[in-house]
Amino acid sequence: MSEIKLISRRGRETRRAARSQQGAAKLPFIRRKIPVVELLHPEAIDIIEQNAETILQEIGIEFRRDPESLALWRAAGADVKGELVQFPRGMCRALLKTAPSVFEVHARNPAKTVQFGGDATVFSPVGGPPFVTDLDRGRRYATLEDMINFVKLAHTAPAIHFSGGSACEPMDIPPGKRHLDVQYSYFRYSDQACEGTPETPGHAADAVRMAQVLFGEAYVDSHAVLLGNINSNSPLTFDGRMLGALREFAAHNQGTIVVPAVLAGAMGPVTTAGCMAEILAETLAGMALTQLVRPGAPVIMGSFVGAVSMRTGSPTFGTPEATQMIFATAQLARRLGIPCRSGGSLCSSKQADAQAGYESAHTLLPTLLAGVHLVTHAAGWLEAGLVAGYEKFVMDVDQLAMMQALAAGMDLTERGQAMDAIREVGPGSHFLGCAHTLANFETAFYQSTIADYSSFEQWSSEGSLNAEQRANAVWKKMLADYVDPGLDPALDEALKEFMARRRSELSDAVEED
Amino acid sequence: MSEIKLISRRGRETRRAARSQQGAAKLPFIRRKIPVVELLHPEAIDIIEQNAETILQEIGIEFRRDPESLALWRAAGADVKGELVQFPRGMCRALLKTAPSVFEVHARNPAKTVQFGGDATVFSPVGGPPFVTDLDRGRRYATLEDMINFVKLAHTAPAIHFSGGSACEPMDIPPGKRHLDVQYSYFRYSDQACEGTPETPGHAADAVRMAQVLFGEAYVDSHAVLLGNINSNSPLTFDGRMLGALREFAAHNQGTIVVPAVLAGAMGPVTTAGCMAEILAETLAGMALTQLVRPGAPVIMGSFVGAVSMRTGSPTFGTPEATQMIFATAQLARRLGIPCRSGGSLCSSKQADAQAGYESAHTLLPTLLAGVHLVTHAAGWLEAGLVAGYEKFVMDVDQLAMMQALAAGMDLTERGQAMDAIREVGPGSHFLGCAHTLANFETAFYQSTIADYSSFEQWSSEGSLNAEQRANAVWKKMLADYVDPGLDPALDEALKEFMARRRSELSDAVEED
Repeated sequence: MSEIKLISRRGRETRRAARSQQGAAKLPFIRRKIPVVELLHPEAIDIIEQNAETILQEIGIEFRRDPESLALWRAAGADVKGELVQFPRGMCRALLKTAPSVFEVHARNPAKTVQFGGDATVFSPVGGPPFVTDLDRGRRYATLEDMINFVKLAHTAPAIHFSGGSACEPMDIPPGKRHLDVQYSYFRYSDQACEGTPETPGHAADAVRMAQVLFGEAYVDSHAVLLGNINSNSPLTFDGRMLGALREFAAHNQGTIVVPAVLAGAMGPVTTAGCMAEILAETLAGMALTQLVRPGAPVIMGSFVGAVSMRTGSPTFGTPEATQMIFATAQLARRLGIPCRSGGSLCSSKQADAQAGYESAHTLLPTLLAGVHLVTHAAGWLEAGLVAGYEKFVMDVDQLAMMQALAAGMDLTERGQAMDAIREVGPGSHFLGCAHTLANFETAFYQSTIADYSSFEQWSSEGSLNAEQRANAVWKKMLADYVDPGLDPALDEALKEFMARRRSELSDAVEED
Repeated sequence: MSEIKLISRRGRETRRAARSQQGAAKLPFIRRKIPVVELLHPEAIDIIEQNAETILQEIGIEFRRDPESLALWRAAGADVKGELVQFPRGMCRALLKTAPSVFEVHARNPAKTVQFGGDATVFSPVGGPPFVTDLDRGRRYATLEDMINFVKLAHTAPAIHFSGGSACEPMDIPPGKRHLDVQYSYFRYSDQACEGTPETPGHAADAVRMAQVLFGEAYVDSHAVLLGNINSNSPLTFDGRMLGALREFAAHNQGTIVVPAVLAGAMGPVTTAGCMAEILAETLAGMALTQLVRPGAPVIMGSFVGAVSMRTGSPTFGTPEATQMIFATAQLARRLGIPCRSGGSLCSSKQADAQAGYESAHTLLPTLLAGVHLVTHAAGWLEAGLVAGYEKFVMDVDQLAMMQALAAGMDLTERGQAMDAIREVGPGSHFLGCAHTLANFETAFYQSTIADYSSFEQWSSEGSLNAEQRANAVWKKMLADYVDPGLDPALDEALKEFMARRRSELSDAVEED
């Protein structure tokens, strides 16, 4: 009761001194100053690691429709029967000793090169939805224009450090040729680093060739400039398309993320310890394969975690099960000495409502605290990943900037300790006008771009807008504020020539594996 | 991209086997099985502790309009000048050696007695707002009927372990007599433990007398059955009303929570390290006073933390600053060996929208991870605590049940490891119908009462409801499902007689201190 009275009284007094928000500058990737949180006891990690080795040895992983992978495994000493590969205990882990624990993915603007591993955390936007939504036009199939809009939003958002890949699928382009426009858009409309199109070996090869046009062949061979996202077909299976793409990226020294997509209860058991053993087994096998292709190729251990609702069978996010698995992923990757990807701002909600807020926050905060290195789907994800939301995107990037502030840790300098302020103010007064406040208030706290802190009366007089409605204006302003980083006309022309040639060679349908 | 396809395909398949949600049973308070998270390095805690001692020694705390407190301090050896008390370094900390590190607050239903301290976490609903809101009737002054509704909701909600106090202020009752109806409602409509009305020494005394009627005088003297929430008037001040109430509760061996309400930038410096030193100094002084009144009296170290928006001067929650301070509070209390209160489901939003979801989750999850023992305002808080929201309440209790599941830790039994399931299913299949899933799916995951996981088409056909709209039906059902715990008619009569007498003695206005 007293709490509220105090708030109201003091709240009014600062308002006079308040200043408008400063322009938000692009932030470098996070170098965390807070400890990593280990939610699982070391004994739990031991159990999961041992069970993963048992899965690899006694059950095995199927490598389907990719004789090259089977040949590599056979040569390495694994037990190959048909498409099933069984691994001597510890084999995959040993193969990963050649993989870097920290590596960079280079941007065409060197200031935006990002690091994976160590104390770095990199935020990357939503990837993959076939639909987009915004409050003006509603839910609809995504187009190339939408995808380019999301590239521009990710380029402009202060706390997005990496452009990701295919923020939404340009459904207006034939799937067999779509990857060219996707890769081009990422190279053209942002100078941040990005993913490479990973759907098939051919798409991966085209992404690498376009990167070679942009960066030069020798540079690409010695520097990772792409990250290919490789999903296993859980449980315990990789298909030929993903395997071919993985080999393509690794052979060219480009980064891969090996990501089982396991929803507990569907592609994994209904328990998190079971799912984590399965996830670890799959990703160990996939990551080890990159090292057979090219020892030293950069690779990230990924998990994409959720559970299925036992009422509807649909995917759920932001639940305790997902939280446990995000923490477990980061702990397992640390023990392995490999950078990791997990978490994001995941939700099942159809719109950017309270469900979206709760679920996204309950995914994102564990992701940050766990020490995840690459946070994919960190902004814009709706409806279990079927939809990229314009309003949700800018609501999430507001949260990302807050996470970046949290990761900076508590300021313990003389300024942070503020003993001069406490002495100056003394008992029974307030800090609104004291010297320390005046000197520091403009930079003291992150200023939310979405949250409304005004009085009920003011908020009502401004139309009683909810967060989603306020966000509608924010993404439009961000798109209007987008500054084209430009691209050397000769390089642009070379990329376009490559695409034109490939379009004439490719069919509209995606190649079979 | 593959991630989504996998989700859609597998999602459909489980739906057939899905079962309707089970009735949600009342949960005991949490005994956490996960480690406490220490976000601050020990050196940061050292600095804050040293600065708090410097504040106590060199600046001091004002104890206003309460000669009894000043006399106690003088006798204990503090330096008292007028109403300003300065404390030899370490004095308050030393006095707290008599305070219990773990204690119980007893409920009239012994099965609902709660523990504060140790591995316990107790969730308690919103307290104090003068307004309520729901989607049917909008925002309005709270009435006694509203307050009783919230007592019933808290009694019914599975993961609310403690009824709290004055979930909203019954503004239809004169403030000088209101506390009687408040205390009665908590005793009458729930058999959970609760707070005692703390606004003035007289209100506190009436709460203790009503507890003596209910539990017996001797029982109350040897068992805490009330918790009084005592706010300091930050910075560095306690007023006579709060001090008198604190002395009243402590003298009767009832629990107190000493809670500075510090919003960084207003009642504290614009930095979190500065605020935490101030908070620690204030709460050390207030808690030590309880031990001067009655050594051994149970006491909780509290913090109510946020920051003011530097744009509008209004309170903000769920920001990195608040998160840091929640973690810091729990770490400081652990070093002191005193139970702590902090966090909750705090937000500034006017409605239960995405802002409310993000802010509440970014308050609640840190609260749980930090190891906070008493989580006040854990459900129903809106608009910086000015409003108790019916829809927000049931959305929050859904989250609380998830936090309770998270605190249970990962299941590492044979069932949890699920190696039999992984062996049975093998590569390339799914877990939807396997023996392990069929044996465990009903209890596998917490089933949200609010979240919608259905398809876009189904959700649209059901009216495209957002989370707040769905919650409207949930609180109505919870109120309809409320089961009156009953109260011995003789005790009920005795409480009513006491109230009638006191109403005739008290004036409508609140007594001055």
